[in-house]
Amino acid sequence: MLKKFENLTDKGKEKSIEICKAAAKLFNERGYLSTSLGDIARAAAITKGGIYHYFSTKEELLFVILYRYMDKMLQELKRKMDLCNSPEEKIHVFVQLHIYNYRDNLVESHVLLREKGNLTPEYLKLIQDQEREYEVILSHLIESLMKKRKRYSENIKLVTYCLLGMCNWPFTWFDPKGQWSAEDLSEVIYKIFFGGLLSNFGSRQVD
Amino acid sequence: MLKKFENLTDKGKEKSIEICKAAAKLFNERGYLSTSLGDIARAAAITKGGIYHYFSTKEELLFVILYRYMDKMLQELKRKMDLCNSPEEKIHVFVQLHIYNYRDNLVESHVLLREKGNLTPEYLKLIQDQEREYEVILSHLIESLMKKRKRYSENIKLVTYCLLGMCNWPFTWFDPKGQWSAEDLSEVIYKIFFGGLLSNFGSRQVD
Repeated sequence: MLKKFENLTDKGKEKSIEICKAAAKLFNERGYLSTSLGDIARAAAITKGGIYHYFSTKEELLFVILYRYMDKMLQELKRKMDLCNSPEEKIHVFVQLHIYNYRDNLVESHVLLREKGNLTPEYLKLIQDQEREYEVILSHLIESLMKKRKRYSENIKLVTYCLLGMCNWPFTWFDPKGQWSAEDLSEVIYKIFFGGLLSNFGSRQVD
Repeated sequence: MLKKFENLTDKGKEKSIEICKAAAKLFNERGYLSTSLGDIARAAAITKGGIYHYFSTKEELLFVILYRYMDKMLQELKRKMDLCNSPEEKIHVFVQLHIYNYRDNLVESHVLLREKGNLTPEYLKLIQDQEREYEVILSHLIESLMKKRKRYSENIKLVTYCLLGMCNWPFTWFDPKGQWSAEDLSEVIYKIFFGGLLSNFGSRQVD
């Protein structure tokens, strides 16, 4: 899917990233459906024909924006996880990364959350696979933490979704320039989640 | 804003509610912008002229759907809160009502979360006032609970938004016919939140 990108020269890759940035900005401001390839060409200071050198369709552009965004997030997450020693620390870092990543990539985060439904099934599946990988990492971290602390839940996946809810909902209200910083927000989320998990989920005999 | 509705006969009110239901269904399926008054008339088995007897514009229809939905939710919340004795019980009931309400009104919940941005400022403000009232009720409950349990946070509003995040995010994934019930979901949310608040927010001298 990203073959076209891989085969570009360094300068071509730079231009392709520039086009993605201009497109993401427009998708965020006007919505994917209300943005034309002509609008994107104008915003990226390139001809419409020039865009076709890098992307076959507007949908491919949306896909590449989202795929790269998720890929960068996953790579960074894995790199940081490798540096942590305990599940407590890993979950803490996961929450921080999630919120900081949102703060630092407002445009791409919004496009992901609002516009991915416009992808056709083949493209959508690839993004959903990345999202699933992200969720599974978190779900395994929660499982390790509960095992270590001898806590138990039948519904680890549901617990995972609750933490993801606290982490994702800020996209509807959080303003990094507002009264709370991303640091404040991630601390409160972690405190609620970690405390809740340890104090209110029954312990049981663990083998 | 709802004067037109108040002045209707009982039969007229019934018809007006029927039109709202048909419109909400279409707004949910196709989006507000892609639905015409003609589509709504067809779905509600009424003429376009007939709709104008009840609603002046498509926007007024969207507004009435959302206003009534929020109003019903607020009235029910207040009634149930009056029957509870402790802040613990009140927060528990708040979470249950929120999730059950979502389960029982999937169409209106989705239209609220996805389409309210299409309202002009005057209408939007009235819906946001209702949402604020809902948030303030929750924020006061959390404040009472923390005071009672001698817990402290500088960021009660942020804590409130975290709980609302766990309660609202399910709109992106929760399927009441899926593997978890609304009861399962609301219990896990309450356990995480309540445990987190009590165990991980420093106590301090309270007057």
